[in-house]
Amino acid sequence: MPFEINDKEVFVFAIGGLGEIGKNMYGVQYRNEIIVIDAGIKFPEDDQLGIDYVISDYQYLMDNQDKIKGLFITHGHEDHIGGIPFFLQKVQAPIFAGPLASALIKGKLEEHGLLNKTEMHEIQEDTVIKFNNMSVDFFRTTHSIPDALGIAVHTPQGVIVETGDFKFDLTPVAGLPSPNLQKMAQLGAEGVLLLMSDSTNAEVYGFSKSERYVGDTIHKIFETIKGRIIFATFASNIYRVSQAVDAALQQGRKVAVFGRSMESAIVNGRELGYLNIPDDMLLDASEINKLPPEKVMILCTGSQGEPMAALSRIANGSHRQITIHPEDTVIFSSNPIPGNTSSVNHVINLLSEAGANVIHGKINNIHASGHGGQLEQELMIRLMKPKYFMPIHGEFRMLKIHTELAQKCDVPKENCFVMENGDVLALTSDSARPAGHFPADDVYVDGNGIGDIGNVVIHDRKMLSDEGLVIVVATIDYNKKIVLAGPDILSRGFVYMRESGELISDAQKRVFHLIKNAFNESETEVTEAMLKTIITDGLQDMLYKKTERNPVILPMLISASV
Amino acid sequence: MPFEINDKEVFVFAIGGLGEIGKNMYGVQYRNEIIVIDAGIKFPEDDQLGIDYVISDYQYLMDNQDKIKGLFITHGHEDHIGGIPFFLQKVQAPIFAGPLASALIKGKLEEHGLLNKTEMHEIQEDTVIKFNNMSVDFFRTTHSIPDALGIAVHTPQGVIVETGDFKFDLTPVAGLPSPNLQKMAQLGAEGVLLLMSDSTNAEVYGFSKSERYVGDTIHKIFETIKGRIIFATFASNIYRVSQAVDAALQQGRKVAVFGRSMESAIVNGRELGYLNIPDDMLLDASEINKLPPEKVMILCTGSQGEPMAALSRIANGSHRQITIHPEDTVIFSSNPIPGNTSSVNHVINLLSEAGANVIHGKINNIHASGHGGQLEQELMIRLMKPKYFMPIHGEFRMLKIHTELAQKCDVPKENCFVMENGDVLALTSDSARPAGHFPADDVYVDGNGIGDIGNVVIHDRKMLSDEGLVIVVATIDYNKKIVLAGPDILSRGFVYMRESGELISDAQKRVFHLIKNAFNESETEVTEAMLKTIITDGLQDMLYKKTERNPVILPMLISASV
Repeated sequence: MPFEINDKEVFVFAIGGLGEIGKNMYGVQYRNEIIVIDAGIKFPEDDQLGIDYVISDYQYLMDNQDKIKGLFITHGHEDHIGGIPFFLQKVQAPIFAGPLASALIKGKLEEHGLLNKTEMHEIQEDTVIKFNNMSVDFFRTTHSIPDALGIAVHTPQGVIVETGDFKFDLTPVAGLPSPNLQKMAQLGAEGVLLLMSDSTNAEVYGFSKSERYVGDTIHKIFETIKGRIIFATFASNIYRVSQAVDAALQQGRKVAVFGRSMESAIVNGRELGYLNIPDDMLLDASEINKLPPEKVMILCTGSQGEPMAALSRIANGSHRQITIHPEDTVIFSSNPIPGNTSSVNHVINLLSEAGANVIHGKINNIHASGHGGQLEQELMIRLMKPKYFMPIHGEFRMLKIHTELAQKCDVPKENCFVMENGDVLALTSDSARPAGHFPADDVYVDGNGIGDIGNVVIHDRKMLSDEGLVIVVATIDYNKKIVLAGPDILSRGFVYMRESGELISDAQKRVFHLIKNAFNESETEVTEAMLKTIITDGLQDMLYKKTERNPVILPMLISASV
Repeated sequence: MPFEINDKEVFVFAIGGLGEIGKNMYGVQYRNEIIVIDAGIKFPEDDQLGIDYVISDYQYLMDNQDKIKGLFITHGHEDHIGGIPFFLQKVQAPIFAGPLASALIKGKLEEHGLLNKTEMHEIQEDTVIKFNNMSVDFFRTTHSIPDALGIAVHTPQGVIVETGDFKFDLTPVAGLPSPNLQKMAQLGAEGVLLLMSDSTNAEVYGFSKSERYVGDTIHKIFETIKGRIIFATFASNIYRVSQAVDAALQQGRKVAVFGRSMESAIVNGRELGYLNIPDDMLLDASEINKLPPEKVMILCTGSQGEPMAALSRIANGSHRQITIHPEDTVIFSSNPIPGNTSSVNHVINLLSEAGANVIHGKINNIHASGHGGQLEQELMIRLMKPKYFMPIHGEFRMLKIHTELAQKCDVPKENCFVMENGDVLALTSDSARPAGHFPADDVYVDGNGIGDIGNVVIHDRKMLSDEGLVIVVATIDYNKKIVLAGPDILSRGFVYMRESGELISDAQKRVFHLIKNAFNESETEVTEAMLKTIITDGLQDMLYKKTERNPVILPMLISASV
C-alpha cells in the first residue's frame, strides 16, 4: 500500500469530490471493512472536448474488492449516483439507497443491463446496517431532491459523519419532512469523531432560502400570468416541480410534461408520494392546443440551456409540438451553473425574440440553492460538535473557507484537514493524521469507453478545436529513399483551402524537402516514426511563422515499394 | 378567581410582555405552585410624561403569594430584571438567576435596601430546581448579554419552555459558549408541551449576524483610524465591549471608561471573566490627554442619545473631561431604538459639527441584533417540536407573524395561541384552551411612587405639555356667597403673561362672574366641587375661543369666613 495505517486506525479517503464539484465518492475503512459513500460523475469542463462524463479512478477499490461492505448513497443527484454503472462494471458491491435514489439507480442499472446482477437495499432514515466492526445509520437532511440522507459510520474509534449535500430547509414544502435536528444533535451529544461536510456554498454568507419561500414566489407570479406558462427547472428538484404543479392546479391549469428526465421525475414523484397530480390534470401533447392558454402549464427540462433539452428545442423552433406564442411566459426556476451561463442566455434571447415573456433567477426570487450557506454549515458543525473536521464536496477554496468556519465553531485549527482526492486521513479516538495517498485521478468516459482517454487526447481535442487540423499524406519507398506519391495536404478547421492555395503548395514543398533531407542526411536508417516527427516539427514551424497558428499535424505515411 | 382551571390543568400567563416590548413577566402554575419568570420594566413611551418606568400589575401574584416557588431570571436586561425591586416590595420570592444577572440584580437590591431581605440563588446551565409537582431546568442561548438562559418547566402535564431572549449566535466571541443545541434538541426529542418563544424580530426575514462578524468589522474599522476612538454601545452588551477592547488593545490603545453603567459593566465583565483588560491598559480620565490620540479609546454610554449619558455630554460640550477634537472618530455600535432616532441624530449632528468623524449602524456592519430573525425563530421551533405554541415578548403583529412561522414549522394553527397580558392558557398533555383573564394593566412608577399614577395623570401631563397650565386662585366665603379675595390668575406654559394683560384680566372677570352667577342662580347649596367644575368649564370655554388652546385649568379655592 502507498500509505501506512496501523491496525487500530480507522481511515477515510475521497476517491472524488475534493478540489472539485462533482464525482463524489468517499470511503471509510477499518481493517478489512470498507464503507463506500456515493459514486458520482462530474460533467466535463468546457475544454474537455467530446468527454461525456468524468468518473473516479476505482483502482483502490478494485484492489480491495473483498473488503467492500456496501455502496451507501446519500441522494439521487448525478454527482452522487451517476458513476454507479461504471463502478459496478469494475467492482461488486451491494447498494444501500433511499426510495427516490433507489428508483433512479434502478433506471440506470436497467439501461446498462446491470439490474439483475446488483444487490439493492432500499433504506429509510431509521435503517441501521451492521457489519463486523462498523455499523451505518442515517439522518434526514434537506436538499434540492427528496430523500436526502446524511450518513453516520460507527467505528471502533468513534463516529464518522458524512453529511451528504444539505441545506437546513426549516419550512420545506408542506407535508414534507424537515431536517432531523434531534438526530443530528443526538450524534453530537454522544460524540462525533470526524465530520465530513458539504462545502459547496462555503463562500456564500448566510442561510439559503427555504423551498417554501420559492413556492410563495411561484404562486404570486402565476397569479399575474394570463397566457400559457412554460416552467423549466431541474427534473430532480421534485419540491420545485411540486410547487409549480400546485400553483398551476390552483389556477385550474392542466400540466403537460416534456423532456425525458422530467417525464420520469413525474412518474417517480407520483409513485413515491411527493407529487399530487390527478390523472385528469395531466395533459397529453396533442391536447395542448385544444385548451385556452390560461389553462395550460408546460413543465420541461432545459433550465440549464442544454442544447438537446425540451426548452432549447422549443426556443429554437425545432420542437415538434410546442411553438412559442407572444403571450407565453417562460419561467426559469433555476440559476445557471457557472459554465452554462452563455447557453442559458442564448435560450433566453431566442425565447424573447419569439415574443415570450421570460422570468429567470436574477429577476425574481424563483430559485433557492440546495446547499446551505455559511450559517448552515456552522449550524451543522455546532450540531455535530466534531473532534476532527474534513470539508468535502467542493473546490479547494471552498474547503479552505469551510475549515475557517469550523475553527470559529471551536474545532481547533490542527484538527481541521483539507485533503485531496486519494489522500488518506487516519484516525483513532484521540488522534488524526494524514497517512499517505493513492492515485485517484480523473477517468474520462467517452461514449461507451471508460478510461481509454487520457489528458493527451483531451489536449489534442483542445488544440483541434482551437487551431484545426492539417493532414499530410505521402507514399514513401523506404528502400529507395524516395517519395512515391504526394505529399498531399488536407486540412480541417485551419484555413479555408480554396483561398490558401499558395500556403498549401508551400507546405507541400516544405514536406517534400523535409523528407528528402532526412533521407539524404541521416546516418542511420530512416524509420516511419522519425519521418513523422521531422514532418510534424518542420511543418508546424513553417505554418506558425506564416499563420501564427498551431494546428494539429497528422502525417499519414504509406510505405510502398515499386 | 376570574378564570377557571380544573385540578389537572397546568396554566400559563403573562403579567407583562405580550402586546408590547418590555416588562416581561410570565407565570407557570400547577395547583399550588407558581413559577414566575422574569420581572421587567418597560420604558415609557414619549407621551407618558414624567413616568420613569412602567411595571406590571402584581396583584394576581400578591393574592397568590403563598404559592410562588421562585422568580426565575432568563438574563440581566432591564426589561427582564428592572421590575425586581418593585416586585419584591409587594411579594416575597427567592430569586434564581445566572451569574451576570445575579450581579446586576444584587446591585439593584442594594440600592433599594432589599439585598439582605432577599433569598438569591445563582444558577448555572446545568442547575435543576425541584419542587413538589414541578421542576425547572435551563438551556444556554445567546443574546446581546452573556449568561442568557432558556427555561424548561417540567410539569405533570408536560414540559413548558420559555426561551428568554435569544438569537442563535453560532460563532460567538471566541471562547464564549454557543447555544446549547444539543440540550434544546433533547427537550424536543423528549417532547415539549408548550413553547413560549421570543417574538421581537418576527417581522425580520433571515438570521441575525453573529457577534463575531461585528467584531471583524470593528477590527477592520479600527485599523483605519489614526486619531482617538470614542466607542459607544449598550453597557450590557459585554460581547461588544469585549470586542472593542480587544481591537483597541491590539492597536496598543489604552481604554478609558465613562458612564456609570459602562463602568459597572467593566467591573462585572472582568469579575465574571468576560472581559480581559490588563490593569495597566485601563486609563484614568486624567491621563487621557497625556497620551497620543492613537493610543486612546474612550468607551462610553449614550449610544441611544440619552441626554444625560456620557456621549451626549461629550457632544454638547458639557463633559468635564472630554472635548471633541477634529481627528476624533466616534463609533455608535448600536442601532437607535425607534423612539430614540431623533435624539441619536441630534448627538451625531453635534459630534459632526465639532469636527469628529462619526460611524454609525446604517453605514457599517457595526451592530447586530440580539434577537433572532425568522429563521432563528423557526430553528427554535424545529428544535423544540412543541405541541402548542404561544409567542411572547412582542407587540401584537410580531406575535401574530410568529404563529404563522410556527404553522410553517408544522405546529397546527389551532395549537397556536396569541394571548394578552392577564390571559390564562390552560393545558393538559393533550389539550390547550384559553381559560379566562385577570387584570394585568400597566402600573406607572414615578420617582419613588409605584402605581399612584393612572392614565388620567398621564393625560394631564400630556395636556400640560401640549397647552400649558392656568391656575385660578380665589378665596370664597360660602356662607355669605361672596368672593373675598381674587380671583387671581397664574399660568405656566400657556401664554406669556406680561404680554397678555388683557386676556388675563378678561379671565379674572369671567371667573368672578362665573362664581357670582353660581351663587345667585343655584337652587341648592353651592359646594367647592361645584364651583371648581363651573370655573373650569367656563374658563376653558372662554380661553379656547380667544386662543384656540386648551390649557389644564386648576382652580384653587380657599374657604374663609369674615
